[in-house]
Amino acid sequence: MPPTPHRRGRPTIYDVARAAGVSKSLVSLVLQGSPKVSEQSRRAVEQAIAELGYRPSRAASNLAAGRTRLVGVLIDDYTNLWFVDLVRGLHAALGPRGYRLSVADIATADQAEHPVESFLSTRVDGIVVGMDPPDGLWSGKVPPVVVAGTRELSPPHAGSPFASVANDDAAGARLVAGHLAGLGHRIVGHVAVAGGAGTARRTAFTDEMQALGGTVHVTASVGPASDELGHAGAMELLAAHPGITAVFAANDVIAVGVLAAARDLGLRVPDDLSVVGYDDTSLAAARLIGLTTVDDRGFDVGAAAGRLLADRMEGRIIEPTATVLPPTLTIRGTTGPVRTT
Amino acid sequence: MPPTPHRRGRPTIYDVARAAGVSKSLVSLVLQGSPKVSEQSRRAVEQAIAELGYRPSRAASNLAAGRTRLVGVLIDDYTNLWFVDLVRGLHAALGPRGYRLSVADIATADQAEHPVESFLSTRVDGIVVGMDPPDGLWSGKVPPVVVAGTRELSPPHAGSPFASVANDDAAGARLVAGHLAGLGHRIVGHVAVAGGAGTARRTAFTDEMQALGGTVHVTASVGPASDELGHAGAMELLAAHPGITAVFAANDVIAVGVLAAARDLGLRVPDDLSVVGYDDTSLAAARLIGLTTVDDRGFDVGAAAGRLLADRMEGRIIEPTATVLPPTLTIRGTTGPVRTT
Repeated sequence: MPPTPHRRGRPTIYDVARAAGVSKSLVSLVLQGSPKVSEQSRRAVEQAIAELGYRPSRAASNLAAGRTRLVGVLIDDYTNLWFVDLVRGLHAALGPRGYRLSVADIATADQAEHPVESFLSTRVDGIVVGMDPPDGLWSGKVPPVVVAGTRELSPPHAGSPFASVANDDAAGARLVAGHLAGLGHRIVGHVAVAGGAGTARRTAFTDEMQALGGTVHVTASVGPASDELGHAGAMELLAAHPGITAVFAANDVIAVGVLAAARDLGLRVPDDLSVVGYDDTSLAAARLIGLTTVDDRGFDVGAAAGRLLADRMEGRIIEPTATVLPPTLTIRGTTGPVRTT
Repeated sequence: MPPTPHRRGRPTIYDVARAAGVSKSLVSLVLQGSPKVSEQSRRAVEQAIAELGYRPSRAASNLAAGRTRLVGVLIDDYTNLWFVDLVRGLHAALGPRGYRLSVADIATADQAEHPVESFLSTRVDGIVVGMDPPDGLWSGKVPPVVVAGTRELSPPHAGSPFASVANDDAAGARLVAGHLAGLGHRIVGHVAVAGGAGTARRTAFTDEMQALGGTVHVTASVGPASDELGHAGAMELLAAHPGITAVFAANDVIAVGVLAAARDLGLRVPDDLSVVGYDDTSLAAARLIGLTTVDDRGFDVGAAAGRLLADRMEGRIIEPTATVLPPTLTIRGTTGPVRTT
């Protein structure tokens, strides 16, 4: 028996059957993702599983022939903490259905094997892609994929329909523009970043600020997101355009670099310079930083991605879908009214 | 065929055999961890594998009957970034030997299943524990375990010898004490944290400061590490002991909370208060923060843990071992000489 660090008296498949008012065989069919089960029975069993905290034993899992019940989660970089809420949401949706998660990032990965190949070697039942998808992900041998976040999608193969779930990055960038314009900022900067989410944020922010009568100066180079990118980008923007009173950074990690540049230039935040990030990570929420940022609803994106992936892994839904959730603005201490001197 | 996002013309087992000057069968034996292979041949094959970037194909992996070549890495919390270098080191040691990593944390985990149970269900070949080990980890059915970091170890079962690799937390804390004493600090605070590493740091720091003629005030409560713990702890220490001129936080996340408390109290860092962390994470290195901290050599700890685990998974070493690496001090901008007023 594996150890049970959290609980004693683990619930059994019989407890689930009793709670759901169905037979043990029907619970087994649900665990195997059988298409023979009615939607109503499936929901009753899943509710009982969630309420009891039941998890299929190794033996029961093996009933589902050829299934590992393992889901791979692919991200760019552990040091960009936006993924933490995504993983929480995925656990919340997939845990009660008997799936486990394996998280891998590109930044720490061994050169010899791409994390996607690792997932395939481990025979994961599905993959959540939380980065711009690598080439070759859409071959016929790849299990169901759900893309989390706004991404640059190369055309999927005909046989590999996919689902995506993201916060609405364009809407989030417009919230930032509206907030800054409302505080009187008219000449603003944007530290841009490569990739699908970065492009959506840059384009929408620029368009909305211009519609509101403002001018946006955007950094020339778009490297991967980092503290250094934010510092160098803000230095570049403020040297070329001294009239800038606010900077929107493409994400929180970059925004922390912008805050460092402001300090190095002797600019007080927010009195001399307002700074906004994106993602609402634990870094943004830290008391020392207290960053105004866009909450990209990572938990909800993860939960929705988990449900969609489970539907696909169990063969219930195969059409392509694109789910977009509206983000919200979290106003903290790094934004304020433009100085009237 | 799985996709090959990084490279074309993937090296084969024949390339490895040619480069190592051995037969293909001998390469297979090495991949299976056979005890029949001489140490010299094994090293030649492993060197060829590393140089060529060879990874065993799924078929070759299956030769090693009953092996998944998957290693589970268990950590507390993704938001405490000390683990990132550990994972890099593990990849560097285990990747060339054909192992893949699956990282799981406790903080985001689904309530229904402990990550250790997930690892066991996935039939990992070994586990790296980067936190104080949960109860039940040492049962007879658990694969080889290497503990990374200084931990509170409940007595392992007789049949489960284990290895540990850690930086020397006591030595690291003494480096901090020596640095602060050398800057003239005599009345200092320590924001303590629960667990094996926290205890080692607290005890050694207190003893060494006292030996150097100083006085250490330690926070009363020891919750899990967080920004909030650091803020509350520093507020408590500085209210009770206004003569404190420096605070050693048990890790970097806590230190960032201490920096926020200093700002809230109107204390300049380092002019009015010196602050030191532990771990040398990317947070400490961020330009905005620039924290003096102890480099706990996460990459080297990970690489050593990976080698030890591979030896155990392949049956070459089974005696308990304890490896301790000396840490170093990274001096940045949050420490300075005590004010002489």
